[in-house]
Amino acid sequence: MKSKTYNFSPGPGKLPRSVLQNIQNELLDFNNSGMSIMEFGHRTKQIEELVNETAERVKRLMKLDDNYEVIFMQGGGCIQFVMIPMNFSEKGEKVDYIDTGYWTTKAIEEAEILERDVKVIASSADKEYNYIPDNFKTRPEAAYLHICSNNTIMGTQWHNYPKVEIPVVIDMSSDILSRAIDYSAFDLVYAHAQKTIGTAGVTVVAIKKSFLKGIQKGLPNMLDYNSHVEKKSIFHTPPVFSIYVVWKMLYWLENEIGGVDKMETINNKKAKLIYDFIDSSGFFKCTVESSSRSIMNVVFRAPTPEFDKTFVEDALKENIVGVEGHRSVGGLRASIYNPVSLEDVEVLVSFMKEFVRRYG
Amino acid sequence: MKSKTYNFSPGPGKLPRSVLQNIQNELLDFNNSGMSIMEFGHRTKQIEELVNETAERVKRLMKLDDNYEVIFMQGGGCIQFVMIPMNFSEKGEKVDYIDTGYWTTKAIEEAEILERDVKVIASSADKEYNYIPDNFKTRPEAAYLHICSNNTIMGTQWHNYPKVEIPVVIDMSSDILSRAIDYSAFDLVYAHAQKTIGTAGVTVVAIKKSFLKGIQKGLPNMLDYNSHVEKKSIFHTPPVFSIYVVWKMLYWLENEIGGVDKMETINNKKAKLIYDFIDSSGFFKCTVESSSRSIMNVVFRAPTPEFDKTFVEDALKENIVGVEGHRSVGGLRASIYNPVSLEDVEVLVSFMKEFVRRYG
Repeated sequence: MKSKTYNFSPGPGKLPRSVLQNIQNELLDFNNSGMSIMEFGHRTKQIEELVNETAERVKRLMKLDDNYEVIFMQGGGCIQFVMIPMNFSEKGEKVDYIDTGYWTTKAIEEAEILERDVKVIASSADKEYNYIPDNFKTRPEAAYLHICSNNTIMGTQWHNYPKVEIPVVIDMSSDILSRAIDYSAFDLVYAHAQKTIGTAGVTVVAIKKSFLKGIQKGLPNMLDYNSHVEKKSIFHTPPVFSIYVVWKMLYWLENEIGGVDKMETINNKKAKLIYDFIDSSGFFKCTVESSSRSIMNVVFRAPTPEFDKTFVEDALKENIVGVEGHRSVGGLRASIYNPVSLEDVEVLVSFMKEFVRRYG
Repeated sequence: MKSKTYNFSPGPGKLPRSVLQNIQNELLDFNNSGMSIMEFGHRTKQIEELVNETAERVKRLMKLDDNYEVIFMQGGGCIQFVMIPMNFSEKGEKVDYIDTGYWTTKAIEEAEILERDVKVIASSADKEYNYIPDNFKTRPEAAYLHICSNNTIMGTQWHNYPKVEIPVVIDMSSDILSRAIDYSAFDLVYAHAQKTIGTAGVTVVAIKKSFLKGIQKGLPNMLDYNSHVEKKSIFHTPPVFSIYVVWKMLYWLENEIGGVDKMETINNKKAKLIYDFIDSSGFFKCTVESSSRSIMNVVFRAPTPEFDKTFVEDALKENIVGVEGHRSVGGLRASIYNPVSLEDVEVLVSFMKEFVRRYG
């Protein structure tokens, strides 16, 4: 086994060692049952409690009151792209989207396939998505506005969320619980777990009860949010192990880190460390506008694509993995989600410094 | 930790101890990477290989040739209930179903919601679903016939699959790879993993390429089988850990058990042991017609509901868990999927004998 790997993968990515060790320790014996967590029927008291407790932890950490329902679903963000227009609007109805790149483009496409009256009310496509638009107007009759909080590929993030008159639906797959924001400003928040709060296979969805009331009739049961809400995430067999990992991760966030405020402070420090070095390096470049920079995904480039390639190769020799940019944009990227520690980032920045000394 | 638990849960259920131990051993270090399997990006070489190799193992064990595609999906059997009519028929088109209880009823409901011309061409509802119909005729213009291979709640199982002129779609969630049948007799086989080949969170789908050609146009991408086939199960982030467990389970099936033929022999022995005792006990009763009895779920009853209750309680004292019947039908049930060993079943039957001695 390698001594230590520094994992900056875009997701699935690093999990805290203490969480993994804890999962390993009890893998053959959950709660003194003599059984693995994977061997429990999903309708046992143990699993029902686990699911409910995890939902309660999500609510507590997001500071959501009883006006919200929290459920766990399968299918990642991609099925949310489909279910949102399907549930909250009818064919031909107006729905507004802000396009901040790759993932919002996919969300828009699904709404168009479903023949909604889609309007992209703002887009940063004009500058290769290197900023978050701040000049837009929703249509008053639109069923909702859809935005993506953090754009993993572009390295941008909303720092001032839109204040609009229509319901806001937000994809927080890559930054949920990384910052102490006002989550109750949104009508629906969805986030797959594998970046900040768990492993692949489960999506957390928080929905305002009032928003749920407007759901379309006659939907396939599995694609109707109400089916999952009514059965408290056990409409069908939930992805038990993935929910269990979220449960462990939220425990870690609350008790080892000390809550979302503390997490935000650490995340800000981590991001500042890298951005400051990039900006002062005279070698690396981050082309994202400074007011839109993501504290989760630092997207940057060396002076040439050849240097980018060398960077990835040299990093690997130092057990630093996952730093290549997304295949659609190239360059470099350090994903520094919640589980990535300040120490991990210090190692990366030291390596970057050494890289500049060597090749700069 | 308890010395040993005998787990007859209906699913998720038991996993082989050796598989769990193996997963535990490498949980912090997959393939000498210094990283957990959960920490790998889904587009890394390691995960692409894992997914492809798992699909190849499924094909090999099902003895499917290159006329089939094997993919991994999320959403369990329930999303298949929706996707099958959505992909393989249009609104108003004829689709045939055989109703063998609870789960097929749900599949039928979803096809009806999607406004297909659904015909239940046979049903065993007349006798509380205690048999598999053998007298039916498909409509020649129907897009497909849908059946459920094994009915976990009713304790019935197809032993002679229908020979019809239209494509057959089969739910094998509870008996895939438990028997050496001719899997190539079907156009689409789907099975969530958590009963015979893994843990919750992933569904295996094997589709004949010729059947794929007829897929409807204009579907939401996530709900189009072709999206997943074209991207070899990595259209979006797959449930990596659950696929990894399937990979381990198939290794166990091939190398520890010795293949599907051997598995079938063991499964038949396990089932015979329980059914023979029930039939000769003069106490327990199995009301499923003998030619339709499931080798995966043995559904039975004690003489009174009170005895059923006592049975579950007394079993628990002997570390025998999961033997209560489904909440919709009551009674008792022993689920004896692939991971349940002959020894486990011997322990259960000994306990049943003791129970009859005590209360009979």
